[in-house]
Amino acid sequence: MEKRILGIDPGLARLGFGAIACRQGSSRGSHAEISVLDFGVIQTPAKTAIGDRLRIIYDDLHTLIDRFQPDLVAIEKLFFYRMGNTILVAQARGVIVLVLAQYQLPAIEFTPAQIKQALTGYGNAEKRDVQEAVARELHLETIPKPDDAADALAVAVTGWFQAPWR
Amino acid sequence: MEKRILGIDPGLARLGFGAIACRQGSSRGSHAEISVLDFGVIQTPAKTAIGDRLRIIYDDLHTLIDRFQPDLVAIEKLFFYRMGNTILVAQARGVIVLVLAQYQLPAIEFTPAQIKQALTGYGNAEKRDVQEAVARELHLETIPKPDDAADALAVAVTGWFQAPWR
Repeated sequence: MEKRILGIDPGLARLGFGAIACRQGSSRGSHAEISVLDFGVIQTPAKTAIGDRLRIIYDDLHTLIDRFQPDLVAIEKLFFYRMGNTILVAQARGVIVLVLAQYQLPAIEFTPAQIKQALTGYGNAEKRDVQEAVARELHLETIPKPDDAADALAVAVTGWFQAPWR
Repeated sequence: MEKRILGIDPGLARLGFGAIACRQGSSRGSHAEISVLDFGVIQTPAKTAIGDRLRIIYDDLHTLIDRFQPDLVAIEKLFFYRMGNTILVAQARGVIVLVLAQYQLPAIEFTPAQIKQALTGYGNAEKRDVQEAVARELHLETIPKPDDAADALAVAVTGWFQAPWR
């Protein structure tokens, strides 16, 4: 039985996405297999009105979900560092959460520390270690680029580790 | 020529709206007239998942805009007091801004101080004074209830004072 997970690294300027397919081992002792379907970023131009940027995110997310038909969405939790930026990212997150609700898609959120812990066994792991773990889990020969897409794959793999159907 | 303005007081639990019609005096010296079309609140249940609450806002805003066909939308600017709440309201705001962009509707934002100034001539006016000014401008015999709807009418009237076509 194959399940698909869409990982999302939220952002207004760059929203990373990573879609993976997971196949549960069918016989006792066989391993579960995960593989990459696709990854990338939704970019919105900085000099465009915020409404039009949110509309790009809304439309592109619909397209991604229609394309991958995920069974689960895993999202990196908002990380608050600067107030002004937080408001912008929170608005983008509102649109993401809206779209998931429109599809009635189950979603799980993970903090950056939870993602690091799940992939490396260490909540304070370096970015590079997390990226190498992602590449290893997904049988990729190189680290996925750009960083936002790698982050989205990392949260997708974390979602797989924690998936309710496992 | 009649123009319609939709005022919005953003919120996740309660989003106030107020729709007004504005008729510019046709002959020299005649006064512009404004009147209320409708006002109220979009409420979302607190114990519901955030995505479903945003979906209610998304769907109800579409319904409101289809119904009033506004020429302009006036929005009260986000007021930051508590971080946790701000993130929730910012997500709701993201959905509002998305919908306005979907309709390609022009929108103006006003701070609470700008609204008070426009309606009472005093940026630190009491809530009650603002509400009485709204009732007077709109020829209402009583102050509109609830407060979120009165606030939405206040920002709609402010939008009328500042409307680009005046």
